[in-house]
Amino acid sequence: MARVVVEVMPKAEILDPQGQAIAGALPRLGFEGVTDVRQGKRFELEVGDDMSDDQIAAIAESLLANTVIEDWKVVRVS
Amino acid sequence: MARVVVEVMPKAEILDPQGQAIAGALPRLGFEGVTDVRQGKRFELEVGDDMSDDQIAAIAESLLANTVIEDWKVVRVS
Repeated sequence: MARVVVEVMPKAEILDPQGQAIAGALPRLGFEGVTDVRQGKRFELEVGDDMSDDQIAAIAESLLANTVIEDWKVVRVS
Repeated sequence: MARVVVEVMPKAEILDPQGQAIAGALPRLGFEGVTDVRQGKRFELEVGDDMSDDQIAAIAESLLANTVIEDWKVVRVS
């Protein structure tokens, strides 16, 4: 078995209201010095050792990310 | 400015219905070989160069993660 991480983040040109809400809340809660926050998703997949990068890319693209508004990246952890 | 990533994942002993739904959907959609999926959150923060690890940990712990059910990890990217 191998562990694969898929990181999904809103594209740079897409507004991220969740991240903006966090960035706005931080100074009110006493945390200064954070200028921008973007929120995305992180998936940890346990996959068979024979699973190819192409197969994982197909899963990320078709099921885990909305490629209209999100970028995704695959990181093999082990 | 520095970029910091905060990874927030459900604790190992916590059920993760979103991840289970994805793991259940994959075979139906023709993707075999994924035995487990866990879904968490990923935050990208732009912070001042003088922000300490302790300050970022405080933000992660108090605002970004629910420490009852989630683990968090800070990764300095640049």
